[in-house]
Amino acid sequence: MSTTPAVTLARRPAGTPRPDDFAVTDVPVGQPGPDEVLVAVSELSLDPYLRSVLGPGHLDEPAVPIGGVVPGRAIGRVMASRSASVTAGTWVLAETGWRARAVVPATSVRPFTVPDGVPPSAVLGALGMPGLTAYAALERHLVPRPGDTVVVSAATGGVGSVAGALVAAAGARPVAIVGTSEKAKDAVDVLGYRAAVVRTAPDWEAQLAEACPDGIDGYLHLADQPTLTGVVKQLAVGARVSLCGLMDQYNDGPRTVLDAGAVMTARAVVHGMVVYDHGDLASEHAAKVGELLASGDLVLHEERHAGLHRAPEAFARLMSGANRGKVVVEVTT
Amino acid sequence: MSTTPAVTLARRPAGTPRPDDFAVTDVPVGQPGPDEVLVAVSELSLDPYLRSVLGPGHLDEPAVPIGGVVPGRAIGRVMASRSASVTAGTWVLAETGWRARAVVPATSVRPFTVPDGVPPSAVLGALGMPGLTAYAALERHLVPRPGDTVVVSAATGGVGSVAGALVAAAGARPVAIVGTSEKAKDAVDVLGYRAAVVRTAPDWEAQLAEACPDGIDGYLHLADQPTLTGVVKQLAVGARVSLCGLMDQYNDGPRTVLDAGAVMTARAVVHGMVVYDHGDLASEHAAKVGELLASGDLVLHEERHAGLHRAPEAFARLMSGANRGKVVVEVTT
Repeated sequence: MSTTPAVTLARRPAGTPRPDDFAVTDVPVGQPGPDEVLVAVSELSLDPYLRSVLGPGHLDEPAVPIGGVVPGRAIGRVMASRSASVTAGTWVLAETGWRARAVVPATSVRPFTVPDGVPPSAVLGALGMPGLTAYAALERHLVPRPGDTVVVSAATGGVGSVAGALVAAAGARPVAIVGTSEKAKDAVDVLGYRAAVVRTAPDWEAQLAEACPDGIDGYLHLADQPTLTGVVKQLAVGARVSLCGLMDQYNDGPRTVLDAGAVMTARAVVHGMVVYDHGDLASEHAAKVGELLASGDLVLHEERHAGLHRAPEAFARLMSGANRGKVVVEVTT
Repeated sequence: MSTTPAVTLARRPAGTPRPDDFAVTDVPVGQPGPDEVLVAVSELSLDPYLRSVLGPGHLDEPAVPIGGVVPGRAIGRVMASRSASVTAGTWVLAETGWRARAVVPATSVRPFTVPDGVPPSAVLGALGMPGLTAYAALERHLVPRPGDTVVVSAATGGVGSVAGALVAAAGARPVAIVGTSEKAKDAVDVLGYRAAVVRTAPDWEAQLAEACPDGIDGYLHLADQPTLTGVVKQLAVGARVSLCGLMDQYNDGPRTVLDAGAVMTARAVVHGMVVYDHGDLASEHAAKVGELLASGDLVLHEERHAGLHRAPEAFARLMSGANRGKVVVEVTT
């Protein structure tokens, strides 16, 4: 049996992950058995939900064991197939984990195409799970109406960059909350947000109030406790909130809480979002986001890292909020 | 100008109100001016929302001033009218405050009737605002389906007693959370709950789990922080929560918060409830609850106090959770 480069979990991260929580090593890789395929990974998707996979565990699934290959989604090419439904040479989306080659069940891979002029990595972001998260949160929870003000946190990330374009496409005003002034610039200059607020600024709540003079009609939450606390104070009557990700909890921090009195005063509706429940929207999501990508109303905003060995550092950047756009690792080995 | 007995606010309550936060006194009462009526109060409704009226203020309204008559809803008879739309002798629901006689705008009173055999005080509870709160929370937020388990806190109070009957009428299982073992007995023996849990029992969460083996599909919240925290841990996937009242905040305690991770894990939907938004449901509420009262499927569960001077003590009982049923004060002066 031969081996393939991989990234494993060296120790369980405490708080925000550090590059040395991981190890770059070689792991065995075999040939596909019946109904399996061998995938050569081309690009790896780094997403915040992976933080909970590293410990304590994501949703009801146990954490990855120490020494185990870090799980994760990638695009790659089928090199060998023992399935009638997938032929060698096909480009697929697959749960390979952080490794250069992986044998996976043929039923778990998804062949994909992208519209002309759109890079394949869109399947990991705007056309993938982060984009579907944004689409479903807007379609099912926030339901922006023309003239509404919709605030999106982590606004330049994989979910947020798509959410902003979808809000604008619905005729509503997207307002960004971001972690750095560089991201604020990206939000307005690249991603079409009408205004952007840096959540670490001492007067950020006043800035948000100025950007949302009629209150906040919709809020997509993918940030930390102070952001949530500050936003819910400014909800308009009848506001909708979609809880898509809790940054503190990803990083093992205290439980994120929501002020119940503010929810009552605004007669707000708060939705817990788990993207796996919204797979039925996948084809309308792909159609709508494909259209926005093709027209240029949605710009693919990516931070690319070259080499599998860069994944630990790239993930630490992502989880500390230093990244600029959806984080993709090019697997060049 | 003559006077009428009244209860005024002697000092702003700290935490749970005490009887000596109030004063029983005589206040001036005049004759009705144009488009006004003079109402002789018969029965006064004591409701938890009044706690916030005493300070810091209810919704966007300022708190009642020290020395001011305590506001509140009552039923009474029109003694004199200078309005063409209301004739003397009519029984009305009115915002009289805690006093024996009050001059109020004719447009603010509502003539009422009750079904045969139902006491007029039903208009203050099951057929009034508390009943409408329960009806709207179920109709618009919790939407019980046959077989669902719906948990109701403050289950024997003005809202809860109606909610339990409505849940059962929808073919779902109502489970009560109450503050005392006497109330637990009332919930099951009188009000038709399938099970009742005393929220102060050390093992109440285990008792709740036993009463809700498939998790909690709907939750009507009208209780304190530990209750909310304990319940949201047991939400079933797809659960609905209606935040109808926050007991700690009524009594000036710390802000009530909701665990955002639990909301996400359950993909729950949390609604802030303000009954004033649901006036459009008033006639269907009256029809449905009138039917349940007439059939005996809903029992009017009241704690009655004789004499306006008893209102302070009755209110302190209500806000400490010692009451048994909807609190009504008979104004016998």
